[in-house]
Amino acid sequence: MSDFLFKRMTLIGIGLLGSSIALAARQKGLVEHIAIHTRSQATLARAEELSLGDSYHKDVADSVKDADLVIVCTPVGACEAVAKAIAPYLAEGAIVTDVGSVKASIIRQMQPYLPKTVHFIPGHPIAGTEQSGPDSGFAELFINRWCILTPPEGTDAAAVDKLAQFWTVLGSNVETMDANHHDHVLAITSHLPHLIAYNIVGTASDLEMVTNSEVIKYSAGGFRDSTRLAASDPTMWRDVFLHNKEATLEMLGRFTEDLTALQRAIRWGDGDTLYELFSRTRSIRRSIIDAGQEVDASDFGRHIV
Amino acid sequence: MSDFLFKRMTLIGIGLLGSSIALAARQKGLVEHIAIHTRSQATLARAEELSLGDSYHKDVADSVKDADLVIVCTPVGACEAVAKAIAPYLAEGAIVTDVGSVKASIIRQMQPYLPKTVHFIPGHPIAGTEQSGPDSGFAELFINRWCILTPPEGTDAAAVDKLAQFWTVLGSNVETMDANHHDHVLAITSHLPHLIAYNIVGTASDLEMVTNSEVIKYSAGGFRDSTRLAASDPTMWRDVFLHNKEATLEMLGRFTEDLTALQRAIRWGDGDTLYELFSRTRSIRRSIIDAGQEVDASDFGRHIV
Ligand SMILES: NC(=O)c1ccc[n+]([C@@H]2O[C@H](COP(=O)([O-])OP(=O)(O)OC[C@H]3O[C@@H](n4cnc5c(N)ncnc54)[C@H](OP(=O)(O)O)[C@@H]3O)[C@@H](O)[C@H]2O)c1
Ligand SMILES: NC(=O)c1ccc[n+]([C@@H]2O[C@H](COP(=O)([O-])OP(=O)(O)OC[C@H]3O[C@@H](n4cnc5c(N)ncnc54)[C@H](OP(=O)(O)O)[C@@H]3O)[C@@H](O)[C@H]2O)c1
Repeated sequence: MSDFLFKRMTLIGIGLLGSSIALAARQKGLVEHIAIHTRSQATLARAEELSLGDSYHKDVADSVKDADLVIVCTPVGACEAVAKAIAPYLAEGAIVTDVGSVKASIIRQMQPYLPKTVHFIPGHPIAGTEQSGPDSGFAELFINRWCILTPPEGTDAAAVDKLAQFWTVLGSNVETMDANHHDHVLAITSHLPHLIAYNIVGTASDLEMVTNSEVIKYSAGGFRDSTRLAASDPTMWRDVFLHNKEATLEMLGRFTEDLTALQRAIRWGDGDTLYELFSRTRSIRRSIIDAGQEVDASDFGRHIV
Repeated sequence: MSDFLFKRMTLIGIGLLGSSIALAARQKGLVEHIAIHTRSQATLARAEELSLGDSYHKDVADSVKDADLVIVCTPVGACEAVAKAIAPYLAEGAIVTDVGSVKASIIRQMQPYLPKTVHFIPGHPIAGTEQSGPDSGFAELFINRWCILTPPEGTDAAAVDKLAQFWTVLGSNVETMDANHHDHVLAITSHLPHLIAYNIVGTASDLEMVTNSEVIKYSAGGFRDSTRLAASDPTMWRDVFLHNKEATLEMLGRFTEDLTALQRAIRWGDGDTLYELFSRTRSIRRSIIDAGQEVDASDFGRHIV
């Protein structure tokens, strides 16, 4: 008798998320066999060199055969095509999930194609770095992070529990919520911060009165913090904004409104308005540190280096 | 014969910057005597408990007597009052400098009051953390960072060299530039990033559809990065924006213009525009790491914890 939670886990896409899941699931002894498929021959070969799995498949149909867990780890925009390609080959009773940063769009893209005989449970581990590709993964990525599952109405509760158990063993806390609510929460906690970071780095690199080498040289004044998010994968993030359009635009509208008020306060020398906001925001970082979602090191501990 | 670069250094204001200078100057044996003045009795007592200096002065006039180096380490908005208060007591030939984050305003505020017999050389070490107060200082703060000096036309070159030597021994690279140019460079590399960070944290905490506890819980998606800058001292930052109004508004105008273009690209599903920007920004972080102004650890090395 085996203790494996799943007999055969198939990962479709083997970048930062896929490779981290492979390493963590192996380390925890969660799955008996790891089958890997990805789009390009080069990435598949690299995954094999890194020994991320047990079998490597050029053919996506081949990769999902007999799998009782399929995790789609591609950019969000690829999920409809993946659902179409795998649907005819999925085993009865298999759990089909994903790790995409938006959720309502994943349901719209995948659910119409998937057979009723599988359990479709979209998921999103709130864990990542600015790196991408199969070399960037590490088994500890999910420890103490949240993983949100957004099962559509009527999903089998036992299947949801089993998938929750998988993420729990990888080190995460699991929460279940509605896909639309997820997309609003992530629009403010992840998508807008990335958009703003990309934008300020773009603005800085387009100035005439300040050179790029000055921007780089004097970045320790705060600018460098923004560049981490702005170094994230372009394809992944293009897809996130295209697939979470409404919620992102909603949050962006509020952000711009607030920023216009700050601009006005600066123009009219209204120090009280500035002081009031700047005092309010300090405690939020404290709460994030207390919640274990941030390191308790000033300047991110950079001066220790 | 002594090897001290200065016989008596007076620090006016003893928060993060003042205490870091005290610790670093002592460690490097740069000054014979450190005299400290600050506004409140409580902070002065704390500085003494921490043994940051050699003498502690309630009276600012008293503190600068016989000093050959005076460094003003208060918020920018306090500098005019400080200049007025110390002017009659400054020793002939003393170097008077500061560490304020804006420079043209410092010249406007201080120069009219200072006697012609002292060397007035405004300065700004591009080094800091989100912490404040005398307990937050550390001697390594200035290592491998840039310090910008903005001597007004006609300043004695030997005095500038001596002050540059001081910062060099503290570990910094020194650059000299025009105060107005400084204010534009810092508007984009420091002031705008802080304003944006304060603003997004404010927007996030005012939402009705997403609770504050959700924002905190799921902040690892990117939001937490913004909170570091938004945890900085409110008084310091109010003063920065009030005293670098024009350059901040100029950079903010460009930022908003670029953000509006991104908003439009999202609304119309223009993935190519998004992809093009997101690809351009990645390399800037690499340059900042190569320039030694950022740590080369993905996710700021948070997962190591
Ligand atoms: N990065 C994060 O911080 C983070 C955090 C949470 C969730 N996510 C989500 O996780 C998913 C994967 O992100 P990641 O960071 O792992 O990305 P990544 O490192 O760039 O890897 C993406 C993988 O998907 C494959 N792929 C790319 N485009 C494809 C297409 N059109 N069709 C089929 N396969 C394709 C790539 O294959 P080839 O190399 O073979 O082309 C690669 O194996 C995304 O949906 C993202 O929203 C990311
Ligand atoms: N923090 C950074 O990252 C950073 C980086 C580079 C440059 N700077 C610049 O360095 C300067 C000091 O910043 P900091 O971070 O060291 O600040 P801080 O930790 O808040 O310390 C400020 C010091 O100034 C005193 N002070 C405050 N208001 C005053 C007033 N109206 N009159 C006289 N003294 C007053 C405070 O005295 P009491 O406690 O006695 O009231 C305290 O000793 C600012 O000009 C800032 O722009 C800061």
